[in-house]
Parts: sequence; structure tokens; C-alpha cells
Amino acid sequence: MENDRILFELKKSARILSQWPAENKNAALEALASLLLRNADQILHANKQDLENLPIEATAAFRDRLTLNQQRIDAMAESLRQVAKLADPVGEITEERHLPNGLHIRRVRAPLGVIFLIFESRPNVITEAFSLAFKAGNTILLRGGSDSRASAKVIYQLIDKAFQNSGLKPFYGIEDYDHAIVGELLKRPDLIDVVVPRGGAKLIEFVQAHALMPVIKNDRGMCHAYIDDEADLEMATRVVANAKTQRPGVCNALETILVNDRIAREFLPKLYSATIGVQWRGDERTLQILNGLPRVKPAHSSDWDTEHLDMIINCKIVADLPEALDHIEQHGSKHSETIITRNENKARRFQADVDAAAVYWNASTRFTDGFAFGLGGELGISTQKLHVRGPVGLRELTTPRWIIDGTGQIRT
Amino acid sequence: MENDRILFELKKSARILSQWPAENKNAALEALASLLLRNADQILHANKQDLENLPIEATAAFRDRLTLNQQRIDAMAESLRQVAKLADPVGEITEERHLPNGLHIRRVRAPLGVIFLIFESRPNVITEAFSLAFKAGNTILLRGGSDSRASAKVIYQLIDKAFQNSGLKPFYGIEDYDHAIVGELLKRPDLIDVVVPRGGAKLIEFVQAHALMPVIKNDRGMCHAYIDDEADLEMATRVVANAKTQRPGVCNALETILVNDRIAREFLPKLYSATIGVQWRGDERTLQILNGLPRVKPAHSSDWDTEHLDMIINCKIVADLPEALDHIEQHGSKHSETIITRNENKARRFQADVDAAAVYWNASTRFTDGFAFGLGGELGISTQKLHVRGPVGLRELTTPRWIIDGTGQIRT
Repeated sequence: MENDRILFELKKSARILSQWPAENKNAALEALASLLLRNADQILHANKQDLENLPIEATAAFRDRLTLNQQRIDAMAESLRQVAKLADPVGEITEERHLPNGLHIRRVRAPLGVIFLIFESRPNVITEAFSLAFKAGNTILLRGGSDSRASAKVIYQLIDKAFQNSGLKPFYGIEDYDHAIVGELLKRPDLIDVVVPRGGAKLIEFVQAHALMPVIKNDRGMCHAYIDDEADLEMATRVVANAKTQRPGVCNALETILVNDRIAREFLPKLYSATIGVQWRGDERTLQILNGLPRVKPAHSSDWDTEHLDMIINCKIVADLPEALDHIEQHGSKHSETIITRNENKARRFQADVDAAAVYWNASTRFTDGFAFGLGGELGISTQKLHVRGPVGLRELTTPRWIIDGTGQIRT
Repeated sequence: MENDRILFELKKSARILSQWPAENKNAALEALASLLLRNADQILHANKQDLENLPIEATAAFRDRLTLNQQRIDAMAESLRQVAKLADPVGEITEERHLPNGLHIRRVRAPLGVIFLIFESRPNVITEAFSLAFKAGNTILLRGGSDSRASAKVIYQLIDKAFQNSGLKPFYGIEDYDHAIVGELLKRPDLIDVVVPRGGAKLIEFVQAHALMPVIKNDRGMCHAYIDDEADLEMATRVVANAKTQRPGVCNALETILVNDRIAREFLPKLYSATIGVQWRGDERTLQILNGLPRVKPAHSSDWDTEHLDMIINCKIVADLPEALDHIEQHGSKHSETIITRNENKARRFQADVDAAAVYWNASTRFTDGFAFGLGGELGISTQKLHVRGPVGLRELTTPRWIIDGTGQIRT
């Protein structure tokens, strides 16, 4: 079977790559960055084709994620160079001790092995994911959304070209967009060490249900901001407007605001004016306050669980912090949540109680990513608790092993 | 449904327990230790009943794992006290930085939540697993092997008694030994955060195939020792005899030795004499060397993948280190592997190449456990790569969250 041949090659390459020195990996990333810049026209041409083929019903946010331009290609190349500059996590000793019996034990970071990334129609993900997996000593199998097939094809060819004389097959981009192939690959824990699904709820559910290898899921970002009665309302307006509108199509964008009743009458009109172009879905109390304004509609119960990924915001008025906490516990997706308040006690309570990968006090949820956190990029943003929560950076693409040196010690 | 009520209670308790101070947790563990010692007779009485009900075909190793005696109960109590003395991992800051934009970000250990442990008929696991999960702020759902049901019942009652006035339900021991219940529980990722299966290959496969929540698998320990031609043969004899016979029923016991052909003729008779009571399964060359000795039989091809968990050792003669590495890659279960050699270069090559949780040089594989590594015990020994490899101690029962403090920062 063709899949088998590719998987065996990736596994064999992973064993070799796990022992490559950092210099070689860095040089390869620099070379790929140059190759990308030199072939920008070809990438943009393919991307234009993808955009032309996009169905008319695609949202603006979807189109935005698919779109490449010279600036984004420059950013892709720059990101490769940044990853080359990051410290190599492989071999890093995270714990070391000499036991009383003379054993010398060390916990050392090692590559995961073969990573299978399933991602959305977002071509710049290819180089970012590849570079992080590669720098951490892993090989990677990529399967993107079919709407980016032309852009992906060109980028896959460029990576292939960069490694054609290396004796290594550090990645494979799947160009068969039939769904069946994903199901087949998920049954191969012998050859794939971890699967990272990014995308819609249906994909994540399918992978969770069928994968026989460990999963790092990148689920919905159903992110909330709680605007406390002790909030600085200017700050709250600025943060909410940013978290909702700066790039609404990404998972760390805000979806729902929970507004303390005591400041709602003052805050809501301010925010309404500051978020031109945003459609509101409000609870009954919100509708009372923003009575008759053109961009405000009643929220349906499903809105509280809907990741709009668009210029739409849900708004609910709550009596106090506990009501906000309960709403987040019920509807949050364990991604990113923020509280706006001057009261540190309330902030600490919020941060301790909310079960999410990133919990903010007085800041936009938009910061949850590998770049903003200083991890040098990310393969995704984990919404699960095992292995990693939040941005999946270089270190998170390794696994800790124990190396033990003895002088003939036996167990008594 | 009864399960739902219990799971909701465990989840609610996990939210409360995640914020309990260490002192309270430690006091509860000390109290449980005392309760255990005061009720040793009752436990031993129940254990005797379990042993009497054991089918005649149970192996000596199985019987050993099920057996309690005063010494083992003392060890259980002592282990609870040791866990009380360990540093509380909850709230521990593992990374901290001040970003140029003024954001203060910290990565903090938090409990996993609700843990579902499926374990073998080994009653002392109950208190060890409970204490580690509890100290790391988690609640735990336990499902043991049915052969230990009477012993488990008494221990479950004692833990219940220790927490009866705490307002907390930190654990639940399932006494319904119908298999169907496990399948039902694996479909509840909403209420169970992680499942830890310990036991036979069939159980692990079932859990991997059906669990919708993350799994920390504790698979077979198919452990090897490679005896190099540059080995100290006295040391090799001592280490192999220990790793095979000291407690053959546990997963870090040795199953297969790979012996360099150049020293086989000298080493094998030495080892044979030093392992009275051990049955040998040898390849053709082994049979030649140990010609006609009573405890030596030909190995079947299945033996190389069989975790005997008994006084049986597989023996294969190899030409060199690469042949040993290839055998381990093909047959190892990624648990514990050891090389016996005086040559450091070969040792480092072995440690770099072998993909296992613990890789030893000149020491017994029997050290792979939470106590021996100084982690204060273990909930199991992970043979997967995600989250944790090897002993699952206190820290491994937590998950890292990001806590971010700002002053109104927005993304630009």
C-alpha cells in the first residue's frame, strides 16, 4: 500500500533526524526560507487559483485564512528563520539526580517521532508546522483542507526541493483529498506517534473517536470576556473590540461577553459604538439596553455554544462573578478566557476557577499563540489537558525519556 | 443513571479539591494511613478470602500481586505518609516571563481533574494511586480486577471513612465488575479528564479503541538486556538474574536477553547456574551452547513478543549491537531496556537509539518505578510518548495552564 511506504519512510527518517545536530536543522530551515521568497510569485499564483475556486458561500473569515500575499509570504520566511534561531529542545535535560544507590538518572527531551497534522485551508500553516516539528526532531505528515490544494501543492514541492539531497524525508504532504484516507491513517499507531487535528468540531470528533494513537486536539475557541462592575470601562471597550474584531476568524478571537448588570447600561452603548460592523446577539436584558439599535438581534440558545469566527458577538448580562464563572464552565471550550476588573481578588478567583488553557486578567484573548507567548510559533493550540494546554511550541513537540547510568546496580 | 451521579460528584469535588491547601491534603493522607494500620486485620481477612477464591490456574506471579500481608500493609501506610511529605505540585510555576508589551505570563501546574484508573487485581495499588491523584488535586474513579474484590471493598470503605466529614468525594471505587460499565464510562469525556488503563494487552486495546478522553496507557513491559562482548560478565550475571527473578510478575522485569555471540559460550552457563528455577526459551545457538540442560527449551517465534511475567527467560544470540537494536525496535514495548558493557560509546549509542521510556546502562530494568526514581510513587508506568513516559508520579498528574496578567493589552 502506498500509505505504508510513505509512513515507513517517515518513521525511518524520524529515527535519523532525532540524532541530527541543531546546525544542520537550522541550515535547512534557512535554505527553505530563501527558497520560499525566491518562489513567492509561484505561490501567489497558485493561491489566486485557490481563491478563484472558493465557493461563493465561503465566509470573509475563511477567505482571509486562505489568502496569501507578499506580506504573508515574507512572514512565513521570517518565521522559518525565527525557528532556526530557537534553542534546540532535543537532548535538553529537564531533571537530573544522583540516587543514593549510585544511579545517575536524567530526564531528557526526545522527539515524539512521526506527527500527523490535519489542518484547515490555511497555507501558511504548512511551513510553520513543518519547521517546528522538524526543529524538534520529528517528521510530519500533513493533510490540509482541500480549498488550499493549489497553494499547498507549490509549498509541498518547495519543501521537497529543499531536502532533495539530504537523504531524509522529513515530511509528506497528502494531496489525495478523499476523506477515507484520514480514517485509514488513524488506525496506524505503529507508524504514527501522535495526531494533531485542527479544524471544525466534526473533524475533532471523528479523530477522537477513531484514532488509535494519542491525539492533541485543537478544538473550538469559545472564548469569553467577563466585564466586572469594577472594570475600567475604557479598557474593557478597547480589549473587547480588539479581541472580537482584530482577526475574527481565528480561534482566540472573542465570541461572548458576560457583562455585570451594574455597569451594563453604561458599557453596552460605548462598546456598540466602538465595534462598527459587528452584529450583536443579545439576551433579553441586552436587548432592553440597546433597544432598537440596528445591529442587535436576540440570541438563540445555540449562540452561547457557537464559535462564530465572524463579526458577530454574543452578549449576556450577569448578576455577578459566580454567574459568569458558571456560564464559562458550561459553555467554554477550555481555550482562552479573560476578566476585566480593577479588583485583584476577583481576578485571582477567576484565574483559579476557570478551567482553560489561558486565563487572562485585563488583556485580550488574542494573545494565546506561540508567537505572542514567546514560544517561537505553534503547531496548534491544544484545548485538552494531557501533554500540553494552549500553544503547541517546540518543547511541546518533544517527549521526556529517562536515561539511567549505573555500575551494576540491582533491585533488592 | 447511577454512573452520572457519581461522575458529577467527582467532577464537583475536583473543582473544590483543586483549591485545597497542601496542609489539608497531607492531614487527610496521614489520617488514612493510621486508619489502614488500625484495620489491617480486616484487610488481611478479606485478602485471604480473595486468595481462597482464586482459580487454581492462576500463576504464582498473579497470586503474588494479589497477596497482602502485614508487611505490605505497613508499606501501604508508609507510602501514604511519604506522599504527604512530598511537595504539592499544584500551583507550581514552571515558566514565567515578562513580555515586552508588559504582559506577565506564567505557566502553572493545575490538577488534571477526574482520573479513571483501571487496574489489575493488586490491592495495594488502590492507596498508592488514590494518594498520588489526591495530592495532585485530582479526584479518582477506580476499577480494579475482580479477583481482588473483597480486599478492594474493605480498602474502599476505609477511604470513604477517612473523608466522611470532609464535604468532599475524592474517590469512588467501582464494585460492579461487569465489563459493560467500562465501555460506558469511556464515552464520557465531559466528566472524565483522563483514563489510565493498567493490565493486559486486551484491556489496553479496548480502552485505546473506545475512549473518547485522553489515555495514559500502561502497556506490557517487554524488557530486554543486551549483553555486549565488552560486558563485565559477573555484573551481567548479577543484573540479569536480578531483573528476571527478583519479582518476575511486574512490568519492569526482564523478559529477553540478547547476548553477543563472542561471549555467549562463557556467559550462558554462568547465567544458567545463577538463575535456578528459571526456564529458558532459547534460539538455535543458545540450544547448542546449553546443550541438553534440563531447563532449556527452543523458543517459539511468539516468545519474542511474550511478556511471560513468570520465571521464564528468552535468550537470543546476536552478532553485534546493531542486531540487538533492531531486535528491540521490532519487539520492545517502549518500557525499559538495558545494555551491559564497559564501552561508553556503545552505551550512548544504545541510549540514543532505543525508543523506550527508560534506557539503562549497566543496571537492572527493575528500577523503573516512581519510588526508585525518587518521584514518591506512581499511578502507573506509561509506555506512550504523550504527556509522560515511564513512572506517572505527582507532577505527571497535573497539567500546565497559562495565567496572564495585563494592563489592558490588545493585539495589533
